[in-house]
Amino acid sequence: MADTVSEVWAAKQAALQMAALNTAVKDAALTAMAAALDAQRTEILAANAVDVAAAEGKLPAEMIKRLKISDGKIDDMVAGLQDLLRIPDPVGQTISAMELDTGLMLYQVRCPIGMIGVIFESRPDVVPQIMSLCLKSGNSVAFKGGSEAACSNRALFTILRDAAAGAGVPAAAFVLMETRDDINKILSLDEYIDLLIPRGSYQFVRYIHEHTRIPVLGHAAGVCHVYVDGAADMDLALNIVLDAKTQYPAVCNAAECLLVDREIAPVFLPRMGALFAEKGVEMRVSPEAKPFLAGLPVKDAASDEWTKEYDDLIIRIGIVDGVDAAIDFINSHGSHHTDAIITADESRQRNFARRVDSADVLINASTRFADGYRFGKGAEVGIATGRIHARGPMGMEGLMIYKYVLVGHGQVVRDYAGPHAKPFKHQPSNDRYVM
Amino acid sequence: MADTVSEVWAAKQAALQMAALNTAVKDAALTAMAAALDAQRTEILAANAVDVAAAEGKLPAEMIKRLKISDGKIDDMVAGLQDLLRIPDPVGQTISAMELDTGLMLYQVRCPIGMIGVIFESRPDVVPQIMSLCLKSGNSVAFKGGSEAACSNRALFTILRDAAAGAGVPAAAFVLMETRDDINKILSLDEYIDLLIPRGSYQFVRYIHEHTRIPVLGHAAGVCHVYVDGAADMDLALNIVLDAKTQYPAVCNAAECLLVDREIAPVFLPRMGALFAEKGVEMRVSPEAKPFLAGLPVKDAASDEWTKEYDDLIIRIGIVDGVDAAIDFINSHGSHHTDAIITADESRQRNFARRVDSADVLINASTRFADGYRFGKGAEVGIATGRIHARGPMGMEGLMIYKYVLVGHGQVVRDYAGPHAKPFKHQPSNDRYVM
Repeated sequence: MADTVSEVWAAKQAALQMAALNTAVKDAALTAMAAALDAQRTEILAANAVDVAAAEGKLPAEMIKRLKISDGKIDDMVAGLQDLLRIPDPVGQTISAMELDTGLMLYQVRCPIGMIGVIFESRPDVVPQIMSLCLKSGNSVAFKGGSEAACSNRALFTILRDAAAGAGVPAAAFVLMETRDDINKILSLDEYIDLLIPRGSYQFVRYIHEHTRIPVLGHAAGVCHVYVDGAADMDLALNIVLDAKTQYPAVCNAAECLLVDREIAPVFLPRMGALFAEKGVEMRVSPEAKPFLAGLPVKDAASDEWTKEYDDLIIRIGIVDGVDAAIDFINSHGSHHTDAIITADESRQRNFARRVDSADVLINASTRFADGYRFGKGAEVGIATGRIHARGPMGMEGLMIYKYVLVGHGQVVRDYAGPHAKPFKHQPSNDRYVM
Repeated sequence: MADTVSEVWAAKQAALQMAALNTAVKDAALTAMAAALDAQRTEILAANAVDVAAAEGKLPAEMIKRLKISDGKIDDMVAGLQDLLRIPDPVGQTISAMELDTGLMLYQVRCPIGMIGVIFESRPDVVPQIMSLCLKSGNSVAFKGGSEAACSNRALFTILRDAAAGAGVPAAAFVLMETRDDINKILSLDEYIDLLIPRGSYQFVRYIHEHTRIPVLGHAAGVCHVYVDGAADMDLALNIVLDAKTQYPAVCNAAECLLVDREIAPVFLPRMGALFAEKGVEMRVSPEAKPFLAGLPVKDAASDEWTKEYDDLIIRIGIVDGVDAAIDFINSHGSHHTDAIITADESRQRNFARRVDSADVLINASTRFADGYRFGKGAEVGIATGRIHARGPMGMEGLMIYKYVLVGHGQVVRDYAGPHAKPFKHQPSNDRYVM
């Protein structure tokens, strides 16, 4: 136990070196890490086979699918590492600058957060993805993966850490926590870990939120709504709702609830229901919606139905009286993740965008667009539904903060205080500080 | 007890209305709040007199000074409220925009965090300052002040809340928690409060950090260093160090520790020491520094001296071997708040700026510059030494987050996935979304 804590302590110390690494070293390390994964496929696949064999019969098929590493998945990992070479080094970028007075320049400069903790289930591809993002952004990182992926995680972690170290990155910056009690240990290390990123099921993420004082960035629930307004284009609405539910139902940004404006329900719902039935989507419907789905295989929605996350080919359907009612429903039943409106009415679009209290608000587009890749962030750290630091799909900005650098020529505050105080200029500037 | 919790719950609900308030209502409320303070000076001063009378003889003079409200302090409060009228409404500002594909525009739009908790000691001027900032930024706010300022806080809070409500702001958005057990109550309300801002002593802020799962933005300690490098201009260094220690020693950004490069110590320290002695600054010095301060009234630094915050006319003085040793010393003994280097050597400046792990790094300028007003932020929410969300002196940005608004014309992810996927453009844009 003392061992892991001292490793995390050492990683926290190494964070100062990570923050100061130059771009060439980081890029050489990323190149070496990609090459090492490519070269050591046999070892990775063998380690993964041990995990998969142990899991078979014990874990659900969906979880085993996420656990399994194929040659194609290794290709994706290698490509992901190489993609990061093309992203400019974020460390040291000037975010803003201001001339406080002649010869007194203030710069807001991007820098790493320090020490990131990542707690995840099943998917071993989290290791190359997050390790490479932490490296590029100058952070140290401690991983705690699930026991079901222990061999896979260890193989990937060791190959990547050794490759990075060979290129001049401090090996101590990377920690893999492996024992069962490490989960509670990592949650207690608020002195060392600056930010926790959890990736896993609702229960898993809730547990983490409730058992740590470390700031947590991520999401527990993805309860996404599509509201079809009375002023919606019918075909467009049918197409979007179908995509939002069926394009990939197992993920957090798939729709779980369809809300239909009472005005349009009699014409829209029979067609929508027929499409759902055709695609094998189970419909759980409110008493008000039911009459419009006559002859189709629907179930009555349970009283506790309206906050559930299915991640499956199931949708619940309700009727609302216009956009304001839809907004209120979404704010009180949703998970503040991703919600969509389908309407041609611009003032209703803006009302929805302004008042829906979610990280992602979509107008006439499928909820499935809400992820890091589609939002143009390159690699994705995760999706956050909290209210500070970063929100929605997070790229590397989730791993960065800033410091202020004030460059003067001997200025003292005495001259800017009291009855004969010099005034400040406070003039925004496009100047950049090069560290 | 149930009452206060239900008030906070109601404020959390009102946050949705606060987020949607238009600029005209908010500005009318700020104007009314300023006028109300101006008109009700007698009530405010009378309430404050009760607090001050009760405090006399029981609290230290410095705390009573912060507690006391004068006509001049009311002028400052009124001016602070009026200043906010000139700041553009931050809610709804487009931070960035990206064309994902033709007719598919992604906007990152600034919005309030939601519900802010403020816990503070003594200074009742925190109430108008933070209440007006929360209003302008569209947040609800719950205050918990110290019992020593109970009458003053209640008077200010009631006058301001009523004036805001008269202008159309929901009164429920503002809560004042008054009873002794409210401190632990507010810390437990992580379901309702999105961010806590503590303002007070080291012990007070530490307590808050250690007893809540709500994210905390602020600072406990302000242990600031000035490092005088061998390549420093001597007169410039003397002037800056004196300002950093003596211009206003009671505050967090005053210097507590002077580190002198061994190279320059024999010429610099005798002059610096003479200036300190003249200004009545108590010097606590390391064995290595002592010989250079011969004949001056110095004390030996205690073994636990090097992490202390004095907030008083006391400074400790140590010798280091060059800039790298200074950086290591500061990173291991400081509080990651504000640290300065005095040197004419540009590469040492950059090394210091890059590697000192503090919110504010100052080059050839006094540490006293590190505050919200001098950094050009207008009003200051606080100074943060944490590592997420906001760091250093915080203006209104500390109270804001963003949401993503994706505006499409019927796009579905199905078309952008699979073997014949449409490519994304991911083209940054200067377009703005008007909600």
